[in-house]
Amino acid sequence: MSDSAPVHPTSAYFRPALDKGTAGASAPTLNLLSEAVSLPAAVIYQSRLDNNVSWMQRFAASRGVALAPHGKTTMTPAFFQRQRDAGAWGLTVATAPQATAAYRAGIDRVLMANQLVGRGNMALVAELLADASFEFYCLVDSVANVEQLGRYFKACGLTLNVLLEIGVTGGRCGCRTQEQVETVCAAIAREPSLALVGVETYEGVIGGADAPAKIREHLLKVRNIAELLMQRGLFAADKAILTGAGSAWYDIVCDVFAEVDTELFVPLIRPGCYLIHDQGIYMEAQQKVRERLGDSCAVSGDLQSALEIWAYVQSIPEPGEAVLTLGKRDAAFDAGLPQPSLHYRPGWQVPVTPPPEWEVYHIMDQHSAMRFDPNADLNVGDIIALSTSHPCLTFDKWRKLNVIDDNYNVLEQVDTCF
Amino acid sequence: MSDSAPVHPTSAYFRPALDKGTAGASAPTLNLLSEAVSLPAAVIYQSRLDNNVSWMQRFAASRGVALAPHGKTTMTPAFFQRQRDAGAWGLTVATAPQATAAYRAGIDRVLMANQLVGRGNMALVAELLADASFEFYCLVDSVANVEQLGRYFKACGLTLNVLLEIGVTGGRCGCRTQEQVETVCAAIAREPSLALVGVETYEGVIGGADAPAKIREHLLKVRNIAELLMQRGLFAADKAILTGAGSAWYDIVCDVFAEVDTELFVPLIRPGCYLIHDQGIYMEAQQKVRERLGDSCAVSGDLQSALEIWAYVQSIPEPGEAVLTLGKRDAAFDAGLPQPSLHYRPGWQVPVTPPPEWEVYHIMDQHSAMRFDPNADLNVGDIIALSTSHPCLTFDKWRKLNVIDDNYNVLEQVDTCF
Repeated sequence: MSDSAPVHPTSAYFRPALDKGTAGASAPTLNLLSEAVSLPAAVIYQSRLDNNVSWMQRFAASRGVALAPHGKTTMTPAFFQRQRDAGAWGLTVATAPQATAAYRAGIDRVLMANQLVGRGNMALVAELLADASFEFYCLVDSVANVEQLGRYFKACGLTLNVLLEIGVTGGRCGCRTQEQVETVCAAIAREPSLALVGVETYEGVIGGADAPAKIREHLLKVRNIAELLMQRGLFAADKAILTGAGSAWYDIVCDVFAEVDTELFVPLIRPGCYLIHDQGIYMEAQQKVRERLGDSCAVSGDLQSALEIWAYVQSIPEPGEAVLTLGKRDAAFDAGLPQPSLHYRPGWQVPVTPPPEWEVYHIMDQHSAMRFDPNADLNVGDIIALSTSHPCLTFDKWRKLNVIDDNYNVLEQVDTCF
Repeated sequence: MSDSAPVHPTSAYFRPALDKGTAGASAPTLNLLSEAVSLPAAVIYQSRLDNNVSWMQRFAASRGVALAPHGKTTMTPAFFQRQRDAGAWGLTVATAPQATAAYRAGIDRVLMANQLVGRGNMALVAELLADASFEFYCLVDSVANVEQLGRYFKACGLTLNVLLEIGVTGGRCGCRTQEQVETVCAAIAREPSLALVGVETYEGVIGGADAPAKIREHLLKVRNIAELLMQRGLFAADKAILTGAGSAWYDIVCDVFAEVDTELFVPLIRPGCYLIHDQGIYMEAQQKVRERLGDSCAVSGDLQSALEIWAYVQSIPEPGEAVLTLGKRDAAFDAGLPQPSLHYRPGWQVPVTPPPEWEVYHIMDQHSAMRFDPNADLNVGDIIALSTSHPCLTFDKWRKLNVIDDNYNVLEQVDTCF
């Protein structure tokens, strides 16, 4: 414990930091059970990911709608490419930097399901539009934004494709009234640099016990608006886009939007969380989708929870109380806490399923507290794999994800780009 | 809207994604008011950061305790260096990858205020210990962990410095009873590769109305244990470390731990959030620190909230309802929502303070909802800067931070390393 403070070589300042949840020294073949990866780590089961990519693509095809998966959930270029290769129409994103990330991942058609606001963000999109092979769409819902976009893209000599957003009272963005629709459409028509090419809504903000009926009613209204605008010749394309759907109500969106004349419209859904799924809110939402679909679902199989966080038991300071090495820094906690799905002790052949009463009941920044039967065989140094709820807010905690096979071999460590 | 899918050049796959909240095209002199930075963006006021670095260093000096700022809050190497340059004893971290990041930032003395668990994490620390000029400390609280560490570091031919952690019933890690203290110390003594060099506690898990009294009582117990172990000659160093303190109760830790014989002990505090501070839970905690200190505080000035998230008004879909372009992906939401601190309209000379009734009342993944007086002058495209509560969970949402001067010029964009 000397008081001297030797200075490291200057070059050390510029070495990149190690990403959490990755291997330190070079390790040619990583297996999670051999402890070569620093835990906590985010883990994706490749077989389940592939299953989910395929399931939703087949579902959309079976309903005659196009699929633009929402990339905001994972922001993982390697996964964007899998979705594209499986037949996605394009990728949905939420922000201009996310659009840039999608473009750099090789995605050639991006729907930003959001308003494009601010010169800094418009500049990012203008950069992308310099590549004529890149298609981009964003939403508008106000005269002010239409005029700002019109000025900016006119000055750039570029045309921006926009979709009119329709919202619900008490919801998020989007025109609430027919009067708003008329004034925004009129403003678009005054801007030669804007092309109105579709209508968008996000039904996920509608809740309550009668949500399915309210959502269906809202979607009908949106479809009627789109058909009216088409009749009035307000679209700048032969075919207009009609789009909705997160990962909770996409079946209802298909019911209503697939009814359009597909000579005139491209019905398009934009679920994102389906790719990763969970054992929380999206598992419950999918169970309700299945109940609504009943026997009518033409697609075999179902979505599977593809993400786990692997962590250690760090301390058992009191009987039946374990402290785990994962916290709010590692997993979503806004829609239920991560819960144990596997228990493994280094040296064991394979992980086992923990007893159902083991429960994470408290989460801090870097720790979680798990209750367990004090007589159970649990040690400091054991590994607990945890399933999560709400994948979006787990993904943005990680720069690298370990994609594994069903034997826990790490096939690749892929980058996120939040 | 063609159906062709032109493929981007392969090299595009390997271009790094743009970090959110940074500039797109090259922009030599960035000013936030000129909209050269894509919003939302995380913003740090350099003057406030410097103030906070200095304030806590002077506070620790005035109380005769050493300061090892907790780096987990920011995980920003540029800030670690400022803290070290201001006179910090070392840096505190929470995990082995964080220790690696600190080492790579040129920090030569790291206290990992946590148990070191698992071969992957031990391997990271062993790599660092190969540099003999690097000092590392971690915590132990169980015989199992002591034996795991002893075996691992013996096999490496390395010595690991450990501090005994003392906890509280119902708290987090740490020995609860004298019996646990004895058995863990005996286990350490059996491991030639482990050196017991101090005692640690974290008082921040103690809550309730009588928290100050309970914390004081707990700290006295911890100090007594440390003094007892010293008397029994159980420390492997001439001077042992006695450490506690987050950013809420550091004054009480100073009261109790600065009473040790400084010939025998290094009293050490480890606050982290003080560096960034906030306008939420840590502002309140600091107000209570100031009340407890009263006139006894020998240090002028006070901590200042150094972090804001800048975002746009994206939509005003109903009178008095604004949707802002920031969400759970951009700011902490577990200890109060981000709240407006500045309002700016592109073209204005300077930002103004928004009326106190403007309030963010709901936050989603990528959006927030703000209520305002419908008669107020607020437009789509306006900028709102928001203060936050709980800096740790805002920082880990960002890869780049914009460090600005008091005129909103971006002085540098610094990297985080979560």
